[in-house]
Amino acid sequence: MELVTQVLAGERRALARLISSIENDGPTARQALAALYPHTGRAHIVGITGAPGTGKSTLVNEMAKALRRRGQTVGIVAVDPSSPFSGGALLGDRVRMRDLAGDAGIFIRSMATRGSLGGLALATADVVKALDAAGFDVVLVETVGVGQAEVDVARTAHTVLVIEAPGLGDEVQAMKAGLMEIADVLVVNKADRPGAENTARALEVSLDLGRSHNENGWRPPVVKTIALDGTGVEELLDVAAAHRAYLRESGQWAARERRRVQSDLLRMLEQALLARLIERVGEAALESWVERVAARQADPYAAVEALLQEGRG
Amino acid sequence: MELVTQVLAGERRALARLISSIENDGPTARQALAALYPHTGRAHIVGITGAPGTGKSTLVNEMAKALRRRGQTVGIVAVDPSSPFSGGALLGDRVRMRDLAGDAGIFIRSMATRGSLGGLALATADVVKALDAAGFDVVLVETVGVGQAEVDVARTAHTVLVIEAPGLGDEVQAMKAGLMEIADVLVVNKADRPGAENTARALEVSLDLGRSHNENGWRPPVVKTIALDGTGVEELLDVAAAHRAYLRESGQWAARERRRVQSDLLRMLEQALLARLIERVGEAALESWVERVAARQADPYAAVEALLQEGRG
Repeated sequence: MELVTQVLAGERRALARLISSIENDGPTARQALAALYPHTGRAHIVGITGAPGTGKSTLVNEMAKALRRRGQTVGIVAVDPSSPFSGGALLGDRVRMRDLAGDAGIFIRSMATRGSLGGLALATADVVKALDAAGFDVVLVETVGVGQAEVDVARTAHTVLVIEAPGLGDEVQAMKAGLMEIADVLVVNKADRPGAENTARALEVSLDLGRSHNENGWRPPVVKTIALDGTGVEELLDVAAAHRAYLRESGQWAARERRRVQSDLLRMLEQALLARLIERVGEAALESWVERVAARQADPYAAVEALLQEGRG
Repeated sequence: MELVTQVLAGERRALARLISSIENDGPTARQALAALYPHTGRAHIVGITGAPGTGKSTLVNEMAKALRRRGQTVGIVAVDPSSPFSGGALLGDRVRMRDLAGDAGIFIRSMATRGSLGGLALATADVVKALDAAGFDVVLVETVGVGQAEVDVARTAHTVLVIEAPGLGDEVQAMKAGLMEIADVLVVNKADRPGAENTARALEVSLDLGRSHNENGWRPPVVKTIALDGTGVEELLDVAAAHRAYLRESGQWAARERRRVQSDLLRMLEQALLARLIERVGEAALESWVERVAARQADPYAAVEALLQEGRG
């Protein structure tokens, strides 16, 4: 397959074509990804998450620039809500493009949160695979928002950075949003603002109270950064690299690979099974059950039983 | 079924037992909910979402108190991340209990974001059904975080309030997080803080630019509140009631019911189909495919094909 050869050779236009095909969920994408799959598994996949307003995008840009100075190539996947209203995300993207475009060692792609949740997570995972196979050394996966879906996307990374900033409200956002458990590194960005010390201390105290991290031998370091002028970004890269080394040495790298593969397989199975069922029973039958349940002529559990029965065979 | 009779009679302990059973996904819950289902469809389901730090919980408490003064009964479902670290959510819950407990016209339940995404959305939908059948006039569904999963939970409400607050960062959070499309009412909470006027104006401009709302005859009002002292909460309830009346008169109420039912049925089908497949092929077969894919001995698409084939029985 020509597309596969071109992606493996690092041709940007082929990669862009493959990613568009992934987003449209075409059969081409599946065939190409199957052929590319043996070439994946080399990139360091770094997830970046945190509440809005913590400065994630700027930090990701600075990390990319610093990685380039270290001679590494960088793929960036930004999982953004896409909407006619979300001028913010689009604007951020344009700034990013101006800043980083023109460097052949950087490839940027935004993923829209259209359609189903599982669909987005799967498409994101596939884009990461494409970048991995194309030979990028580091893939930064940035998620906007602090919801469960974003946590799920970040969880499939090797190294998860949770970004916090002082003064975003009454409490430390990461603790409120349940992000502490998935953090491998905690970042206090905008560290020149008042309250940065307090935020860092609160994170340390929270780590002292939590068990899970300390048990498996890696306590998430708390790193202070000022993304706007690049302060702390080199240290952050060092810490991320140290986490990668820890994963390799402790056998955790393989464990994370298995976790990601399992979550991908289950999502793909769900999607395929539902599509097959709907094909068998027909859209009209599904619609008619929706009508009956909405009108309280049937209960949803009976509807599901009936649809499963009809789709058997 | 005794449990059903007791829930319909409004017995709190029966309701609490049913909800625990929903969370454990027991067969009792399914049977009870099937029997209760014809008694649902009366409650006004109001979703409350927005970025962390906007004061959602305090606002929900004030809304509940104000609804009680209007003689209405209130169910509250708080979809919270649950973790050993998330002291914030737990603490908020305790404050809430102290504030509202002891009133038989209020029932509060927190849902943990454990397990799968679809699982949480389904469990939340079932708890809302239980509260609806138990006769609560209004059910407030509060989601922590601004992610896609939270949006999905909120989307199943009749009326969605998106909460914003001034000074939470550089931009209006709701626009950044893609929440504008799902908002039926926009709330600027903490309206006594500097920047509240700007935030309200930014929301209005954003509404002017967006199409979808204006097309179907309801432009989301922007309401200013100060949850801490109750300012604006009465107006907020009036607006929510007006939206309910609009839904009824325009036929949108039925459309939202169908949308919710469809999303529930698809999630339930996915879950049931996956469970059936895993039962057929066995956990060991799944595990062995995960190992092979993680070791790059097979690609995920081939693994899914093979598992679907094995499960065809």
